[in-house]
Amino acid sequence: MTQTGSTLSIHPAQRAGQAGDASLIALDWGTTSLRAYLFGANGEVLDTRASTAGIMNLPRPAVEGGFDAAFDAVVGGWLDGAPELPVVAAGMVGSAQGWKEAPYVNAPASADALVGGIVRVQTARGVTLNIVPGVLQNGDLPNVMRGEETQIFGALACAQPPAANEGVLVGLPGTHAKWVIVRNAKIERFHTFMTGEVFAALSEHTILGRTMVTPERPDTDAFLRGVKVARDKGQAGMLATIFSTRTLGLTGQLSREQQPDYLSGLLIGHELSGLETALAQQQSTLAGRALQLIGNEALCERYRLALAQFGCQQAVLVRQATERGLWRIAAQAGLVSALGAAQADTSASQKAT
Amino acid sequence: MTQTGSTLSIHPAQRAGQAGDASLIALDWGTTSLRAYLFGANGEVLDTRASTAGIMNLPRPAVEGGFDAAFDAVVGGWLDGAPELPVVAAGMVGSAQGWKEAPYVNAPASADALVGGIVRVQTARGVTLNIVPGVLQNGDLPNVMRGEETQIFGALACAQPPAANEGVLVGLPGTHAKWVIVRNAKIERFHTFMTGEVFAALSEHTILGRTMVTPERPDTDAFLRGVKVARDKGQAGMLATIFSTRTLGLTGQLSREQQPDYLSGLLIGHELSGLETALAQQQSTLAGRALQLIGNEALCERYRLALAQFGCQQAVLVRQATERGLWRIAAQAGLVSALGAAQADTSASQKAT
Repeated sequence: MTQTGSTLSIHPAQRAGQAGDASLIALDWGTTSLRAYLFGANGEVLDTRASTAGIMNLPRPAVEGGFDAAFDAVVGGWLDGAPELPVVAAGMVGSAQGWKEAPYVNAPASADALVGGIVRVQTARGVTLNIVPGVLQNGDLPNVMRGEETQIFGALACAQPPAANEGVLVGLPGTHAKWVIVRNAKIERFHTFMTGEVFAALSEHTILGRTMVTPERPDTDAFLRGVKVARDKGQAGMLATIFSTRTLGLTGQLSREQQPDYLSGLLIGHELSGLETALAQQQSTLAGRALQLIGNEALCERYRLALAQFGCQQAVLVRQATERGLWRIAAQAGLVSALGAAQADTSASQKAT
Repeated sequence: MTQTGSTLSIHPAQRAGQAGDASLIALDWGTTSLRAYLFGANGEVLDTRASTAGIMNLPRPAVEGGFDAAFDAVVGGWLDGAPELPVVAAGMVGSAQGWKEAPYVNAPASADALVGGIVRVQTARGVTLNIVPGVLQNGDLPNVMRGEETQIFGALACAQPPAANEGVLVGLPGTHAKWVIVRNAKIERFHTFMTGEVFAALSEHTILGRTMVTPERPDTDAFLRGVKVARDKGQAGMLATIFSTRTLGLTGQLSREQQPDYLSGLLIGHELSGLETALAQQQSTLAGRALQLIGNEALCERYRLALAQFGCQQAVLVRQATERGLWRIAAQAGLVSALGAAQADTSASQKAT
């Protein structure tokens, strides 16, 4: 969408003169991108900007003021017109490699716990940046998130009331897909599946990629075939099933153009089989379950198709979870007036806190 | 061991003048290497050579005589002294990308079936190269092997007599690890786990590699920790457990130097868990089972340690499986005299055919 280091106003027509009506600047600052939202007094998004200046992609090194440079390039214009605006940020900007580390809050984690863990850093232009911490679930297989916790609290506004004590299941497909159980308005437990990154590594750096040709449009049949193989024939595990991407090709049963979607289906199928097993340990299941998806729309649609193969027909895509979450945490932290927060976030507050 | 395109005599002192006593030249010709064996009349190895001229690494393109060039560079000296020697080859040289395709033989496959599937190609110097076919197991998850079938028939000479009808279980760790059930002297069924290649892709091309430091020597404790996590906590699958390589590091529970062996243990643990599940479908198990391992000695030793965590203490490393197999198939094909074949292969023939 953007070039390295460039900024882009998504609503250029709204750009000028709006900072005066604004109440909050919020940043979704990840590893490879930085998105900024300018909120009005009632939580409405007045303007947005996007840049590729993620924390691993700063315009200059961090020790040479790279964070300040990226910050000024993206939101300096807004702040010029309204230097007193509060600023909140979530994502990898709070990691050990970020601007300032915001130590993880332990799961189960409420929105209040996130607010309590906010770490502040003073920018070169004298603005205070409020950094939301991530969440850590310790144990034999520790899990961490940074950024997703904010999206999840944003999405809760859209959650259907969960069945008694079942909790809300939220899926965040992507490079490192997360599946999260939220119960009593707390992030209780979650898993991380490295599905997206493993797909890229297998496609680009193993023998499986050598026979693949990217199709003009996604091949849903091939995708669903992979999902079903993982679900029904995947007992020996992913290390065993992925080789079929090649052998089905060798035996004339899968064209080169079908192989990428088949492999994608296999991996997502294994992810959902693994999730199903984890849910079963909690006497739960995917079948018939309502759940929420947060993320890239096309990818979430693939997950909806795959989830249907596990009997789950009620997966709802939640839009603007990031903006909603940033606004909500800022409101809960007192960075914006309680009135504006309440107006914009009534249903979320009532249902989820 | 060798430079690209170079050849190396492993027993240089035996090199001169031995072709006259020889009875067979046998080639193990894979994707990235070519190994040659010169056999005496009784199946003893008189000399060996190794080259990096695998079929994807020929000294010049195949259409420009690359196969002939590699062949002559490695075994030309032997053939100069004894141009009538029969020559047999196994491995990827018989694939669609090889010198000449030797179509797969279907599983269950006996040594006789392999002999029946031998394909012949005339070399530029007028020698006939006998290429052993691979084995295909068709189905929803097709499996293929090329080269391993020859090693397996070589290893059967060392097999303990299997329990009634249980079959012999043979493991071939490596880039694409194979686990093979041999019953009634036939390759009956097998799985391919892409463990080695997935380990390399994850270590070199995902976030997991960023915090890894290769230790001076393998860390057995970290390896076994990974095996046990996969075995005991791996129900959500490999896509979920591998992220712990990073999060155990983030939480100070796994040093950078421990991460490679931990990840290796995780993957091999998932492979063996998957194998265990596949065996269970045949009313079998790894626990208490005798099995054979073929492959790199250090890697097989890692598998022995991992197998012990699954209750399997009787994994035996089979040496020279490739040479034994090539000799045996050549004998069965009548390329060497029945007398010599019988002398060198008595126990194998008695036990396995």
